[in-house]
Amino acid sequence: MELELVSSEKCFNGFQKIYKHCSKVTKCSMKFSIYIPQQTYSGEKFNAIFFLSGVMCNEQNFIFKTGFQRYASRERIIFIGPDTSPRNVDLPGDRDSWVFGRSAGWYLDSTCEPWRKNYRMYSYITQELPEIIRQVFPTTGKFGICGHSMGGNGAIVCSLRNPLLFQTLSVLAPSCNPISWGQEIIFKPYLGSENKESWNQYDAAEVVKTYKGPHKKIFVDCGSDDEYLQLLLPDKLVETVGLNENLEIQLNMREGYNHSYFFVATFIEDHIKYHSAALGNQ
Amino acid sequence: MELELVSSEKCFNGFQKIYKHCSKVTKCSMKFSIYIPQQTYSGEKFNAIFFLSGVMCNEQNFIFKTGFQRYASRERIIFIGPDTSPRNVDLPGDRDSWVFGRSAGWYLDSTCEPWRKNYRMYSYITQELPEIIRQVFPTTGKFGICGHSMGGNGAIVCSLRNPLLFQTLSVLAPSCNPISWGQEIIFKPYLGSENKESWNQYDAAEVVKTYKGPHKKIFVDCGSDDEYLQLLLPDKLVETVGLNENLEIQLNMREGYNHSYFFVATFIEDHIKYHSAALGNQ
Repeated sequence: MELELVSSEKCFNGFQKIYKHCSKVTKCSMKFSIYIPQQTYSGEKFNAIFFLSGVMCNEQNFIFKTGFQRYASRERIIFIGPDTSPRNVDLPGDRDSWVFGRSAGWYLDSTCEPWRKNYRMYSYITQELPEIIRQVFPTTGKFGICGHSMGGNGAIVCSLRNPLLFQTLSVLAPSCNPISWGQEIIFKPYLGSENKESWNQYDAAEVVKTYKGPHKKIFVDCGSDDEYLQLLLPDKLVETVGLNENLEIQLNMREGYNHSYFFVATFIEDHIKYHSAALGNQ
Repeated sequence: MELELVSSEKCFNGFQKIYKHCSKVTKCSMKFSIYIPQQTYSGEKFNAIFFLSGVMCNEQNFIFKTGFQRYASRERIIFIGPDTSPRNVDLPGDRDSWVFGRSAGWYLDSTCEPWRKNYRMYSYITQELPEIIRQVFPTTGKFGICGHSMGGNGAIVCSLRNPLLFQTLSVLAPSCNPISWGQEIIFKPYLGSENKESWNQYDAAEVVKTYKGPHKKIFVDCGSDDEYLQLLLPDKLVETVGLNENLEIQLNMREGYNHSYFFVATFIEDHIKYHSAALGNQ
């Protein structure tokens, strides 16, 4: 595994870096961002949070638009920002939709041509990238996961299917039940229609229904004026979590906030403090 | 005067807005951003800081990339982010250089064709925009000014030439003496070569030399690894301020930081607290 350092910039005493590497999983060059607090002693290790972004984002939006570094620096926590899809594989139609293809990998492993070779973001997020982080960076190995919008669905799916890997889970304005509206435009082209049961494993509300792991809390913020609220369906998540005794949810509806990074910037501190405290107690 | 609201997004309990208006000064449509904290009682008014950005920026970079809203909200202060030049006037050569023309108006009033009609950012920043802010928004009328890079030069020039208008002054990685390297590529095309004395009124170090107003402090942060340090010349500013008993300077060289918005994001809290305390005491 070789990582190429793309950039490294000092920020709140730590460093905001971007790396590039050849992914064995997605069979292409991938970038990810990582914020590393300043070590206060040689050999200091940090817990780490993976942040999954929404459609139309890459590894950079979160690091430029939220000011999270202030809180990550104070809470002594690493933040990893993966990209939202493979890049530069130039498949036919991969730019035709804002909810499918480039920048919209939905953190799933595609099983259909022409996507199946590269569009394997689920394995990338849950296997290859955590392994890289463990091997290269000063982490304790204790990970949390957080996501926004499409990345909220991804974070819930990745954590509930890998509850020991991503021990803590929080989401902002999450897409909670994309299978309810995205069958034709997301699930069918990525996963085919032969085995529709397989779709459920990439839908937050569906994964919640079948979760059997250790007790887990889902910490959620959502804006009351979110322009995508009718697609996000946080009520559906609350409903399904209520049926599973292994799960609990804290949903904060934030009056007047929309879907933007201004909303994320406002509440990311709460999320970082939540992960930091919860990971510290694991 | 008519302002058109382009966007309004809730952020840290206040609102980050962008407005568009027809400027009488620049004879074109101008945009500016404004962050307004939540009023805690009807009729509450706020002190305001003008933030002048650097080259290649518009009214948006600062509001997306610094997380300043957190501190503006807490310190109860309005932030105004003007654009860095006229837009959409399409003058020949206005995109040929990154230090001249579009996104590089240098906050001066051009006196040369074809720039003199529109490139009048000095009058826009020191006359038209403050008047709009006073008339339309809930301000006390007490203003400070802050700037980054080219906007640092602009902030020093605008404040020292209008010490009662912009009572408090701070800069990040300021361009301190652009006349020393930009004569041919900035000052001559904007201001002509007939009256070179007129150039001095738009150069921070030169304006410092002739300042005769009330005692004023310049609060400065600069990164030790700033890739433009040899053009910024903060030492020149310290030297000239040292010769003027009406001025004092606090220059903080920040070890390891570069010129980017990651640097601005790290230290903007200090600047906001500085302005807030200093304006409160005026």
